[in-house]
Amino acid sequence: MSEFPITQRTTVKRGHKRATYNRDIVHAILDEAYICHIGAKMKDRPMVQPTTHWREKDTLYIHGSSKNGLFQTLIEGEEACINITLLDGFVMARSAFHHSVNYRSVTFFSKATSINDPIEKKRTLDLMMQKITPDRCDQIREPNPQELKATAVLAFDITECSAKIRTGPPVDDEADYALPVWAGIVPFDLQKGPLINDPRWENDHT
Amino acid sequence: MSEFPITQRTTVKRGHKRATYNRDIVHAILDEAYICHIGAKMKDRPMVQPTTHWREKDTLYIHGSSKNGLFQTLIEGEEACINITLLDGFVMARSAFHHSVNYRSVTFFSKATSINDPIEKKRTLDLMMQKITPDRCDQIREPNPQELKATAVLAFDITECSAKIRTGPPVDDEADYALPVWAGIVPFDLQKGPLINDPRWENDHT
Repeated sequence: MSEFPITQRTTVKRGHKRATYNRDIVHAILDEAYICHIGAKMKDRPMVQPTTHWREKDTLYIHGSSKNGLFQTLIEGEEACINITLLDGFVMARSAFHHSVNYRSVTFFSKATSINDPIEKKRTLDLMMQKITPDRCDQIREPNPQELKATAVLAFDITECSAKIRTGPPVDDEADYALPVWAGIVPFDLQKGPLINDPRWENDHT
Repeated sequence: MSEFPITQRTTVKRGHKRATYNRDIVHAILDEAYICHIGAKMKDRPMVQPTTHWREKDTLYIHGSSKNGLFQTLIEGEEACINITLLDGFVMARSAFHHSVNYRSVTFFSKATSINDPIEKKRTLDLMMQKITPDRCDQIREPNPQELKATAVLAFDITECSAKIRTGPPVDDEADYALPVWAGIVPFDLQKGPLINDPRWENDHT
């Protein structure tokens, strides 16, 4: 399987056995997650903002107000560190120390390219909608020129990238296995609930 | 109700109607979330790492390997920007532009204090365990001196802090309400699944 090249910055130093640079695994984490966290220097101080993201090949896209301060900073060329994390469960061990978390996480470093061509901008925004609801683009009103202009779309090439994953049961010190305490996984999953109708939609349909 | 002071950096500029500085609301978001994202400059470049967190009064705690590079950087005095975000749902509007996300998010800026006293370190780590499973501390083996030493606990005073929240249905342009497309919320919730026994625990109990 295809791997991302390992660079000095993306070499996972702590817990390196949990590291992977596999392209398919990275893609799957990015595609399952809805929220990424973007970090960058703003006026030489750290800033972290959450935002929705979507992916095409080895490019991650985000969008937001073209007046957003962090977006402006990224457009001006500041490097971003982007993390995407899925929480899968708490690992409940027999000792406090060996408690852990099962997770899948991707971190990469990249500089933004602003998508300014309206046709390409519209195409990439459609990809975001397709990630959430595949057939919705055909049903909704598409963005008009002013709306497209007010929306910044930033593309980040994923090249300097690593994933870190923990799965499976706790790993305790051998002596602790005799302790009379439950051990295992408390699993977590981000679940969709039943759709909630917009009250104005409901008014028109009842 | 008590409010965090609004500073130049924590003034929410985009979407300011969604901003709140209310202490109880900030606390509730921090307590419901299990993962925070820590951003800081490392060797003058941005770094973002996810980690579990817990809270006591206006202090947020994180822990990790004392050899973790970002932890070292924070201990040396680099300022952190910390974001905690709960995804509540996708807001499905009648126009592409008015699609949005319902979320609750806290961002704050702070410098770390390393908790080095073993008794205080143990006390704060117990608070983390109590967040996850209130009565577990009494059942598991507590950390020995070497394990405590290998664990860094960092405390961040929450003073420069804002929350941003979106709730409720989509808000469409008036003309778009006539469009024949469903509109409403796709809710999301991080749910606990059924406990998964450690196979070695199961072997001893069947």
